[in-house]
Amino acid sequence: MILCDIGNSTFDFFYDNHTIKLDINTNYLPDFEDDKDVYFISVNEMATHKLKQKYTNAINLAQKIKFETSYTGLGIDRAVVCSYIKDGLIIDAGSAITVDLMENGKHMGGYILPGLKTMHKTYKEISPKLDVPFDMSELIGLPLNTKDAINYGIFHAIFLPLKQSAISIKNVIVTGGDGELISKHISHSKYDKNLIFKAMERIINAHNSLAQR
Amino acid sequence: MILCDIGNSTFDFFYDNHTIKLDINTNYLPDFEDDKDVYFISVNEMATHKLKQKYTNAINLAQKIKFETSYTGLGIDRAVVCSYIKDGLIIDAGSAITVDLMENGKHMGGYILPGLKTMHKTYKEISPKLDVPFDMSELIGLPLNTKDAINYGIFHAIFLPLKQSAISIKNVIVTGGDGELISKHISHSKYDKNLIFKAMERIINAHNSLAQR
Repeated sequence: MILCDIGNSTFDFFYDNHTIKLDINTNYLPDFEDDKDVYFISVNEMATHKLKQKYTNAINLAQKIKFETSYTGLGIDRAVVCSYIKDGLIIDAGSAITVDLMENGKHMGGYILPGLKTMHKTYKEISPKLDVPFDMSELIGLPLNTKDAINYGIFHAIFLPLKQSAISIKNVIVTGGDGELISKHISHSKYDKNLIFKAMERIINAHNSLAQR
Repeated sequence: MILCDIGNSTFDFFYDNHTIKLDINTNYLPDFEDDKDVYFISVNEMATHKLKQKYTNAINLAQKIKFETSYTGLGIDRAVVCSYIKDGLIIDAGSAITVDLMENGKHMGGYILPGLKTMHKTYKEISPKLDVPFDMSELIGLPLNTKDAINYGIFHAIFLPLKQSAISIKNVIVTGGDGELISKHISHSKYDKNLIFKAMERIINAHNSLAQR
């Protein structure tokens, strides 16, 4: 079984307990043995098309998940990870950072921040003078140069909302490409690298056991 | 006397107690009477060149201000407004938001956040699905649709750092294109639209009275 999570900027494969991350613009998707099933979720139509051309029998899990929420337009990746958690705050940190709250199996809503690297890139688009190296070490005191001033800005713009959201939540799970970095700065959070794939697996297994009855 | 503050995205003129805001890409700078002095500050070299071509005698105030700070690479606009304030937090909200602290006439440092509209633009660059209308009304409860999820993200990413910085500061002054909007959400702050021009005027007057001695 091969799992693929197509995000805004990457293909993330999970195969044989290994992950393979490829830029969304790649023209070379990996070769797997012919008889392997490919299951995927996607928030990117162009990339979905590319995947289906390579793996002609690929199965879109969006059609197999039943996730109820009052939220209009929830991304399939958020629905999949949220369906895996009964109670807790789920932070998925990629090119965007999505934050979702589950309470007793019910999705309570959520919000979206730009990702850390997206924020960093934003500054140099304001002015080439603001093009400085990315550095998430926590600063003490007010910055005294442009590099620190920008990294301090990114740090506080992203971590203050996340910390505020997490403050009264016992179960805080962080995943995604920047999940490990973000988890380090939210003291009581847990980093779960493969949350999305565990959730996809559970949906597939539930579906297959239903089909076998 | 004509004053001009050249930022990253606009020319801001102050003339006859009126302001004139022009996009940085304009090819049509206003015609003033020949004998008027044009004083300017700039963080944008291309635009400085454009200004000097139009007003050949324009005077760069950067050469007339003496502002001591341990901060390396402080933008001239920040130095000018800070030099006007003895004690307080100065928030200048344009395409970038600069935050600077003055204590007893000493610049203590500062940091840079992306501007509100810059943040908003960032989302649609992550994905066209995140292209929603900008709306800074404060939300109650967790968002239940993409538009609210994004505006909630922008709101908290920008206002939590600003509120945290302002919390123990008596004199909080907000200026710049989004200054009025930002000031509304920081309860004890004052909005001063023309802070930069008042500061420029004071530098010019001090310099002229010195020259006349």
